[in-house]
Amino acid sequence: MNPIEPIELADFKVGVDNVIFSVDTQQNRLLVLLIKRLNYPFSSYWSLPGTLVRQGETLEKAAYRTLSELIRVNNLYLEQLYTFGGPNRDPRELPESFGVRYLSVSYFALVRYEEAELIQKQSNFPSWYMIEKIPQLAFDHNQILDYGYQRLKSKLKYSPIVFDVLPELFTLNDLYQFYTTILGENFSDYSNFRNKLLKLGFLFDTGVKVTKGAGRPASLYRFDAPSFAPLKDQPLLFI
Amino acid sequence: MNPIEPIELADFKVGVDNVIFSVDTQQNRLLVLLIKRLNYPFSSYWSLPGTLVRQGETLEKAAYRTLSELIRVNNLYLEQLYTFGGPNRDPRELPESFGVRYLSVSYFALVRYEEAELIQKQSNFPSWYMIEKIPQLAFDHNQILDYGYQRLKSKLKYSPIVFDVLPELFTLNDLYQFYTTILGENFSDYSNFRNKLLKLGFLFDTGVKVTKGAGRPASLYRFDAPSFAPLKDQPLLFI
Repeated sequence: MNPIEPIELADFKVGVDNVIFSVDTQQNRLLVLLIKRLNYPFSSYWSLPGTLVRQGETLEKAAYRTLSELIRVNNLYLEQLYTFGGPNRDPRELPESFGVRYLSVSYFALVRYEEAELIQKQSNFPSWYMIEKIPQLAFDHNQILDYGYQRLKSKLKYSPIVFDVLPELFTLNDLYQFYTTILGENFSDYSNFRNKLLKLGFLFDTGVKVTKGAGRPASLYRFDAPSFAPLKDQPLLFI
Repeated sequence: MNPIEPIELADFKVGVDNVIFSVDTQQNRLLVLLIKRLNYPFSSYWSLPGTLVRQGETLEKAAYRTLSELIRVNNLYLEQLYTFGGPNRDPRELPESFGVRYLSVSYFALVRYEEAELIQKQSNFPSWYMIEKIPQLAFDHNQILDYGYQRLKSKLKYSPIVFDVLPELFTLNDLYQFYTTILGENFSDYSNFRNKLLKLGFLFDTGVKVTKGAGRPASLYRFDAPSFAPLKDQPLLFI
């Protein structure tokens, strides 16, 4: 420390920004929820949904509040993603604006598409965007979104988040399609994927069969949480 | 939003707190770097090393600054851990104190013990504590440390961070001891561990042998980064 020059601490406002993913399992599309900004800065740009943290409010509560103002959904996974807090990420930091730094604690969410109902009365046009067609976003939100996309892919490999958003009963092909939509066609062939997951021992064949399209009848499986519980702290690969 | 009651945003100071781990490979001890607090609040409590973020400074730079004021080390791994920012985590938030919320962006570091030199001129007594003997820490630092410990264990399973801090040449037994010190004796037996790691194909036998204690001569290996590069985005288990 230099005792001559007093050290100036930065003052902050803190926001949360949510990277909300969903998989449209009918059309095999990976989607991200964006909103249109109505105010300065980056007015009329698309952005990740977010909010500034209020007095007495936890970060996580702010993340859930943002989500609940945009969509109704019961089945979801949410966790903290990463904190972006460098200088110059928000023009409101300028002395002629508010003169405080804006830090973003980002959250990552995966929601069940089939039941996620967008709240259309919002004036900021909450919209699902295909991951391949994300426009230039406000602030550093493209970078936050990229970070969330990496986390999503990594989560699929090492954790069972898919079962938080798939329907309770699903075919192994449904599961494979879900993975393929996020990881791309080449992540694994179907029979390796099937064998690997069945060997882990937490997918239970219900005995019920369904027929989809022209295919043979396929068994409906469910994720058995009690069978998974002892594996929770084991090193595990899902693909 | 309720238009009658204006929404009060929280004002923040932002700090970084570092969970700095090291493995004493001579005595097989997992260590955490703590400092003694000299000022209000929690004066004379042990705490994680941290600092408040200065004007113009990035979060990561603040984390490196904290580290460099306490230890000299060349070989280390550092990444952002988690952000703790709920109300009431710091008494300086009280209206009769500074009246702003204190948010902590925590960082996780693993440093090479043999070369990590504590800077003793510091008046805050930087000290290595064994993970089993952590005292009651200031603020929510026990919780942050626990979170860091989970991350460390998880990193060992899924990523090659150990090679950032092991010496360039090591025996497979050195590697096993390092893992055992962090994960406990029962994580794997030696021969499974050895076979699994050799099969991954990025450990190169240098042909040089060393003798330690009464044991047979053991080969010195090195981590081959080019062989690991194509595996970087593959789902991979190290144990």
